[in-house]
Amino acid sequence: MPLTGIRVLDLTRIISGPYCTSILADMGAEVIKIESPGEGDPVRAQGVIRDGLSWYFANYNRNKKSVTLDLYTEEGKSILRRLIPSCDVLVENYRPGIMEKMGFGAAALQALRPDLIHCSINGFGTSGPYRDRPAFDFIAQAMSGFMSLNGGENDPPMRAGPPVSDLVAGMNGALGVLAALLRRERTGRGDAISVSLMSSMIGLLSFQAANYFASGELPPRTGNDHGIVAPYGLFETADGQVAIAPSNDAMYEKFLDALELRSLRSHPEFRTNADRMRNRASIKAAIEARTRQQSSRYWIERLNQYGVPCGQVLNLREVFDDPQVADQEMAIDVPHPDGQQVRMLGFPIKFAQAPCRARSPAPPLGADTDEVLRGLGLPESRIQELRAAGAI
Amino acid sequence: MPLTGIRVLDLTRIISGPYCTSILADMGAEVIKIESPGEGDPVRAQGVIRDGLSWYFANYNRNKKSVTLDLYTEEGKSILRRLIPSCDVLVENYRPGIMEKMGFGAAALQALRPDLIHCSINGFGTSGPYRDRPAFDFIAQAMSGFMSLNGGENDPPMRAGPPVSDLVAGMNGALGVLAALLRRERTGRGDAISVSLMSSMIGLLSFQAANYFASGELPPRTGNDHGIVAPYGLFETADGQVAIAPSNDAMYEKFLDALELRSLRSHPEFRTNADRMRNRASIKAAIEARTRQQSSRYWIERLNQYGVPCGQVLNLREVFDDPQVADQEMAIDVPHPDGQQVRMLGFPIKFAQAPCRARSPAPPLGADTDEVLRGLGLPESRIQELRAAGAI
Repeated sequence: MPLTGIRVLDLTRIISGPYCTSILADMGAEVIKIESPGEGDPVRAQGVIRDGLSWYFANYNRNKKSVTLDLYTEEGKSILRRLIPSCDVLVENYRPGIMEKMGFGAAALQALRPDLIHCSINGFGTSGPYRDRPAFDFIAQAMSGFMSLNGGENDPPMRAGPPVSDLVAGMNGALGVLAALLRRERTGRGDAISVSLMSSMIGLLSFQAANYFASGELPPRTGNDHGIVAPYGLFETADGQVAIAPSNDAMYEKFLDALELRSLRSHPEFRTNADRMRNRASIKAAIEARTRQQSSRYWIERLNQYGVPCGQVLNLREVFDDPQVADQEMAIDVPHPDGQQVRMLGFPIKFAQAPCRARSPAPPLGADTDEVLRGLGLPESRIQELRAAGAI
Repeated sequence: MPLTGIRVLDLTRIISGPYCTSILADMGAEVIKIESPGEGDPVRAQGVIRDGLSWYFANYNRNKKSVTLDLYTEEGKSILRRLIPSCDVLVENYRPGIMEKMGFGAAALQALRPDLIHCSINGFGTSGPYRDRPAFDFIAQAMSGFMSLNGGENDPPMRAGPPVSDLVAGMNGALGVLAALLRRERTGRGDAISVSLMSSMIGLLSFQAANYFASGELPPRTGNDHGIVAPYGLFETADGQVAIAPSNDAMYEKFLDALELRSLRSHPEFRTNADRMRNRASIKAAIEARTRQQSSRYWIERLNQYGVPCGQVLNLREVFDDPQVADQEMAIDVPHPDGQQVRMLGFPIKFAQAPCRARSPAPPLGADTDEVLRGLGLPESRIQELRAAGAI
């Protein structure tokens, strides 16, 4: 696998960091998740719990090892100091400055492992006026401008449903780690990477940011409509709605052909895209009068035959019952030691030669503590002492 | 830089592929963008154009070279066949099967460059019933279940404002390429990677998917409210709105302290989170009666002092005028040869030792054709012939 032999020390919790390290784990890295004794990652207690297991936790922590370590104790820190030299990568999502306070600032890390790749996933960056603020997905969505673009024209700014800023920050973290590992292969040098929730969301502003920079004009929220193309959006059918995206004039003509509404081509109100934007409601009405006569399934098949991008708005049940999603194995069942088959998301990156795999289920809290500490050369008696002292 | 010395052949257009290769280019790779003679990437003509330049194109194609090549001609294909052996990576976003039809299927690529890393970015995957369908960001958002989670409870399913599926697929493509490059360093072997818009969006379904898998219940759209925590969301102030995310009981108590509303703690309707979820509207009203008395700025400062995650909903002007965004250099000005300073998005991944840089502006169409063809050993006369024939 791409990351076989790479050891990652994972000091993250909740989502952004665990998603980053799960990408690395899915690619074959050995990820050692450090958790506080007793409680562990708070996500262990979040989401729907079945037979004592959070399936949310199980999803983001498959393929990892769990080691308990109380980093507020001197013993805990001393174990961490012994562990770092054995790791290629360290990922953490503490607030900036906390690692330093704990005695693991840049210089200390460098001394412990000169070619370490240290990745910080944080709210706003490791410098700047908001550096020390507490962060949260929703706040990054708000402060990045993303929410100002999400939602309908007459709605308030809207947060995206899933925690996109956590996830995209996690992906940026993994991109940074992989790039730094490549550089290390060639130069022998490590690096320190910072990825923030806010900047990760700003990185998604795309054509809206480009148009704002070029024109100075604020882009509007357009809901399901396209900002500059009509017709476009959700159209009612006999039994639901279909999303249709004829993104240019050629596509629009194919769309009219598929609808058997070629007469609209010469309709004076709908001649150019500018005409259709002006008369968006009436062209939508004209098209829906036709699309309502047949089922969604009929239109999906017919429009795809004509090469017009379209699809149903699926809910999660429909998504995971869909034959394409099954073909792409985007839900996988992972056997857990207690006998549960835990269903979780599959791997969006498909490698032909070295595919991502679920090698092991999410670990029970501290399941790998003894093995990892023995690997550091700690004798059994010392491990027992640390356990008695509550440090592991 | 992390990817110095890596040569990427870029057969992509529009956004998903160009975003993937721009991540690689920003990290130091030499990216050779192949474009059709005459017109090039359609994005050159999209978005706001200033002095003949699309700033949208400029954003996603900085740090790249442009080579024109008509891949519908035999001459164009023969140049491509000469170019591939010099490249470490090939990224394309054709529909699956098109590369094969053009004579560049897996076996042909393997013969030309045995350790090639080939990344396909596509709509639905390289297999399965929807493999050949035309794809589009909006359609992937609809079919992935993402839209079923985005928007208010009483709204229709809502597309995200920015083209998230294109962007996240581009990021997954770059993750795959970097992982495969690492594996090549260690094994000498290449790989073929497929990343789809639809699976990339499914990869973002997060706790909603986990909870659906565990419970069989469809998650609702909750707009700006949290699915299982109250109070939470947007709150009116004297001069706007503030996003506030007190995500657990301890945070809720700090929030009440900051509001000087400690009396609410013992209010019988608001005792537990379950009580507050049931009486969401009335606790929101009680809090807004207080937050409306002061400005957004006041509350942001005060709530952050109390450790409560909060922030303003910023529009793009406010985002790019924000001191934190300036500190993080999330807008950069890149000088272009015609004298324009083109403002574009900065780099969300910060490397301390080997930072991403804007080394060169987006190239004019075909600006690097001659240099790259000369590098393949083509004599000047042959280059003139190809140009006369319209193949470059």
